Amino acid sequence: MKKRVVIVGGGFAGLHAARILGNRSDVEVTLIDRKNYHLFQPLLYQVAMAALSEGDIAAPLRNMLAGYENISVFKGLVRNVDMEARTIDTDFGQIAYDYLVLACGVQHHYFGNNDWEEFAPGLKNLAQATEIRRRVMEAYEAAERTNDLVERKKLLTFVIVGGGPTGVELAGSIGEMSRYTLSKIYRHIDPKLTRIFIVEAADRILGTFDPDLSSRATRELEKLGVQVWTSSAVSAVDVNGVQIGRERIEASTVLWAAGVQAQEIGRHMGVETDRSGRIIVESDLTIPGHPEVFIGGDQACVTHQNGTPLPGMAPVAVQEGKYIGRTILGDLKGRTRKPFRYFDKGQMATIGRNKAIVQFRKLKFDGAAAWLTWIVVHIWYLTTFRHRVFVLMQWAWSYFTLAHGARLIVNKEWRFYGSERKGCPDAQDK
Amino acid sequence: MKKRVVIVGGGFAGLHAARILGNRSDVEVTLIDRKNYHLFQPLLYQVAMAALSEGDIAAPLRNMLAGYENISVFKGLVRNVDMEARTIDTDFGQIAYDYLVLACGVQHHYFGNNDWEEFAPGLKNLAQATEIRRRVMEAYEAAERTNDLVERKKLLTFVIVGGGPTGVELAGSIGEMSRYTLSKIYRHIDPKLTRIFIVEAADRILGTFDPDLSSRATRELEKLGVQVWTSSAVSAVDVNGVQIGRERIEASTVLWAAGVQAQEIGRHMGVETDRSGRIIVESDLTIPGHPEVFIGGDQACVTHQNGTPLPGMAPVAVQEGKYIGRTILGDLKGRTRKPFRYFDKGQMATIGRNKAIVQFRKLKFDGAAAWLTWIVVHIWYLTTFRHRVFVLMQWAWSYFTLAHGARLIVNKEWRFYGSERKGCPDAQDK
Repeated sequence: MKKRVVIVGGGFAGLHAARILGNRSDVEVTLIDRKNYHLFQPLLYQVAMAALSEGDIAAPLRNMLAGYENISVFKGLVRNVDMEARTIDTDFGQIAYDYLVLACGVQHHYFGNNDWEEFAPGLKNLAQATEIRRRVMEAYEAAERTNDLVERKKLLTFVIVGGGPTGVELAGSIGEMSRYTLSKIYRHIDPKLTRIFIVEAADRILGTFDPDLSSRATRELEKLGVQVWTSSAVSAVDVNGVQIGRERIEASTVLWAAGVQAQEIGRHMGVETDRSGRIIVESDLTIPGHPEVFIGGDQACVTHQNGTPLPGMAPVAVQEGKYIGRTILGDLKGRTRKPFRYFDKGQMATIGRNKAIVQFRKLKFDGAAAWLTWIVVHIWYLTTFRHRVFVLMQWAWSYFTLAHGARLIVNKEWRFYGSERKGCPDAQDK
Repeated sequence: MKKRVVIVGGGFAGLHAARILGNRSDVEVTLIDRKNYHLFQPLLYQVAMAALSEGDIAAPLRNMLAGYENISVFKGLVRNVDMEARTIDTDFGQIAYDYLVLACGVQHHYFGNNDWEEFAPGLKNLAQATEIRRRVMEAYEAAERTNDLVERKKLLTFVIVGGGPTGVELAGSIGEMSRYTLSKIYRHIDPKLTRIFIVEAADRILGTFDPDLSSRATRELEKLGVQVWTSSAVSAVDVNGVQIGRERIEASTVLWAAGVQAQEIGRHMGVETDRSGRIIVESDLTIPGHPEVFIGGDQACVTHQNGTPLPGMAPVAVQEGKYIGRTILGDLKGRTRKPFRYFDKGQMATIGRNKAIVQFRKLKFDGAAAWLTWIVVHIWYLTTFRHRVFVLMQWAWSYFTLAHGARLIVNKEWRFYGSERKGCPDAQDK
């Protein structure tokens, strides 16, 4: 009789686990995601910065798994897990499992200040990417319209909270966009006057990289007009800017690239989690006492061979997903489980359109070679052929023309006659 | 001294008027649009049907006009026009003009029943296109999840109100998508059971075309699974479907492709308008008594040589925009104005991915030749090189694979911690 495998989450870990199990005659797979698409998250900042469109970095899950007859895909929410009964509760019914794979990912964390979210969107999904794009482009449009110079300065000020790869990529993109792409198309403002700040609480940005690379990245950012403030913890965020201890920056656009925390569901399962809510797993990525429940991707807290937890990165999630798939298949053949071993593929971060830093074990380098490496790796890992070809061409166009052509401000509100509006439709909101 | 020309609206009419006036030493042009992009509206239905992405059919206005030193672009709203003082009130200040060009377009019209809008989105802007795409894809996802067969039938029922080109294009796309594209990727539903209705109040669809073409189009739609109901006026729309006199269809998705009406601003100017609010203009496209105020595009009611009003179509708007630009330049050279003459470029409508109808004066044809004509014309008129190349490639991909790859359901709500939500983020809403 076939074993029922339920996978929650269609990101890197869930998708790759599903693919390993695809078309195997002894398993029936159900994959559930709250979205209908798989998102290539490492490129979200390109959508936020209008260099790529949403459709370039996301593909419908059904398409990606259509070739596997034994995989059913549902768009839905998982509300609860009953590990004794081996069932999950979804918003479309209860599903029983023989094996459960939770790979729900993480969301942004405001250190207990959830009211800051309104003023400082994060960057973990497509809706946020388009919201960020909207805010950045609206800021320039508003600056072009106003004659109030103090207001204009505030509109041309961007604060990115958090100096990890995401924050650095966002800041570098805004720097490049303001110094190059936008510089000739405004008649009343000089986009080169844009102030961009990275505000990082630790003593250096890119803390997971070698200090030498952090230092070089800081210099590259400064050349693009980004001011890097380290040892600077944000104490408050409001509609007019950020407070950093006794210091203050007035900015109409604040972006959150700081903490993340695992999805809620882990907390309700009565299992041990780390400070960010990530579920602490055994060496075979299962919950202690429940060898049939696997956790993969950012939601899992996996200890590296050297004792530190594995970072929440795409290559880690991919390897964990594949491992989970193979381990389940191994179970069905009666094999003993081996512990998960992460093959360190290094880490990378881009700064602007032709600089990057790459660190692979003891090898570290930056500059154009690093950027080329970054491009090649990202295109390779984009998971459909169509995306590889098209995204490559979009990038090529963007590279040669600094186009950022996808700079569309699309209203959230599609209605004309919504009751909150009188007179003019499409009233501007932030 | 330079004359100040203010153009309100960056659609086909406004954009082409601006281009004629671009880089002329005797005019200073200000173009204002509530959006920051120019939208190629004839392809909106392709975004709604997930064959193209937003960025494929829209380009930032600044880019398109960046080469003209004498053109300033502002994103903003025009609230009022004072024709005596020759000023306009915007949401960023008052602007004086020597010449004013109003080309604000139209919006959907629910015949006095604005509360229907919630249940039946129209298709005049990008936000609506993505809303429609979301609703259509959500309907299939919900159908896949449910075991209630009556509920499933309702979810797999789509009603398009209005049998003009837009309605026919939407219906044909859903027909094709359900019978081909989606047919193999669902495990629990048969998308071919999708019911699609076009509900048209007149006695035939495509009333502006020759009756013979209407008839052929109807047959092509039926082959794609679309049921065409003529002499059927919708009397009510609610969350569960539509009422047509004594008949009723239960549908979870209703789309509005029926009446349009001109933007509000015309009504507040004390000028004569037609029943749809379109401003009635002289033979030189100006308001009677105000030769310095031009109206172009869908917002204008222009009488054809044969006595009927010109339709609200892209080729009409393009010609009017160019005419307005040239007329203003002619004024400055002291030339007498000539009346506007529309060079009839015919009309077209597609049905599915390889059928269309084309009517050019006395020439009418359908089938694959018509579809090729449609493709060529649309690609030609897409206004930037990048768009031509990329959209052509997207279409080619779509054509050979029936991919509809841009089928992303992106949430409207980007926040995780919004106050209306408890527990699970991204709670499903319609």
